[in-house]
Amino acid sequence: MTGVDRGRRKLLQAAAAGGLGAGLVTSFGAVAPARAEGVERAEETEGAEGGEGTVRVAVLLYDGVTALDAVGPYEMLCRVPGVTVTMVAERAGQVRTDTGELGLVAERSLDSVSRADVLLVPGGVERGTTPPRTNPAVLDWIRRIHRGSTWTTSVCTGALILGAAGLLRGVPATTYWASRSYLADVGAIYTPGRFVEAGKILTAAGVSAGIDMGLHLAARLSDERTAQAMQLAVEYDPDPPFDTGSPEKADPELRELALKLIADAAR
Amino acid sequence: MTGVDRGRRKLLQAAAAGGLGAGLVTSFGAVAPARAEGVERAEETEGAEGGEGTVRVAVLLYDGVTALDAVGPYEMLCRVPGVTVTMVAERAGQVRTDTGELGLVAERSLDSVSRADVLLVPGGVERGTTPPRTNPAVLDWIRRIHRGSTWTTSVCTGALILGAAGLLRGVPATTYWASRSYLADVGAIYTPGRFVEAGKILTAAGVSAGIDMGLHLAARLSDERTAQAMQLAVEYDPDPPFDTGSPEKADPELRELALKLIADAAR
Repeated sequence: MTGVDRGRRKLLQAAAAGGLGAGLVTSFGAVAPARAEGVERAEETEGAEGGEGTVRVAVLLYDGVTALDAVGPYEMLCRVPGVTVTMVAERAGQVRTDTGELGLVAERSLDSVSRADVLLVPGGVERGTTPPRTNPAVLDWIRRIHRGSTWTTSVCTGALILGAAGLLRGVPATTYWASRSYLADVGAIYTPGRFVEAGKILTAAGVSAGIDMGLHLAARLSDERTAQAMQLAVEYDPDPPFDTGSPEKADPELRELALKLIADAAR
Repeated sequence: MTGVDRGRRKLLQAAAAGGLGAGLVTSFGAVAPARAEGVERAEETEGAEGGEGTVRVAVLLYDGVTALDAVGPYEMLCRVPGVTVTMVAERAGQVRTDTGELGLVAERSLDSVSRADVLLVPGGVERGTTPPRTNPAVLDWIRRIHRGSTWTTSVCTGALILGAAGLLRGVPATTYWASRSYLADVGAIYTPGRFVEAGKILTAAGVSAGIDMGLHLAARLSDERTAQAMQLAVEYDPDPPFDTGSPEKADPELRELALKLIADAAR
């Protein structure tokens, strides 16, 4: 049995064990090998291409995305046997993160990716998430990928993008702490949790919560032992020097300061 | 008082309060505004340029870098008032991460960056870190930036790159759990800790430890309140689904599996 076969078998096991709802494991579609535009030194890597039987994770990038929302889950998933992670954006090439300070490279354009087993939509600050939330091409693509996905996932305000695509009506979900009230606007049911699994929809809380969700997803796509090994592989034994990482642990002034820092740094 | 003035004042306060050792706050040198080569759609952002009085963080990128090593600290620091984070590589443009699946964009080439207040050297898997550890141009640049830095920092096996540059002789430091024994080869004194501060040298344990170190550094560059707000801004209230994030919490077979996953995914 090849590594890829193992990956597929494990995904099927996860599907059988996990109650994946309507999305059966029928989504090993071909990703058209479009050349990345607008990026010098782009490489056509086998990992990005994947092969028949590979579990494909497509991460939506866009200008204004929060880097850690995308990179946290990427780092937890990219070494899981049989899994490939591919960054996808409206156009292939560089996107700039929400502060404008960092460029991430999308290997694929939306129209070159017709199917994925896992869709991951990271969040961004308001100015960042507004364009994908109102861009019909992006929302259509999300709906199309969702129809064939095994898992449709979001981090932070990525949930509001899923919601704008109409995927969260009546669905228990979470999002960034300061954006919880917006879930009702898209018909979702705010549910507390570092991440919330509802059928095949998996939503994480803010930014760094994508790391925890990524480990959970690693277990779903393979097995707990592999996910535990991934946790060790990235030495994820968190020990923050402070304990102010949730709004419940912060005073109102600190909450205001956090939002001000985000707004001031947004481009 | 401008935001930049505040950033500078806070850094001076941190220097006064923090016992920064030999590196006094004299390092607000100009970063030559070289145009990013090899990247279409690159933008000349004010944040990447900084201004007089800005606290400049330079993150070394290279082919084979582990994405989260760089992006974790970036995300903790990029919104701290008066701080700018700039990705730097031997040549400006795209670098590929250790799995080959993700491209990060370096805004600046090494020879266009002559000074930085904070140097951050992320790690990579063996095949990734070997080139910078044996590349005289990179090691010379690290030594040059270190001479003028307020903080010289690393994440994961980035410590071995600092060590190869000769900066860790007799210095208490940490690194990736599986690479601890290599610290002795560069004269460093392995010291347990999520991150270890020794004079102006700050080293973090593996991959995700850069997030914790980044928050500590945010406090050093500004104040605890700002760092606490940054923790809330990224909703860093970690709650991993497993508890196998350090070698002490994992059995020998899990440690082997983690290293196998890393080796198998390395390009």
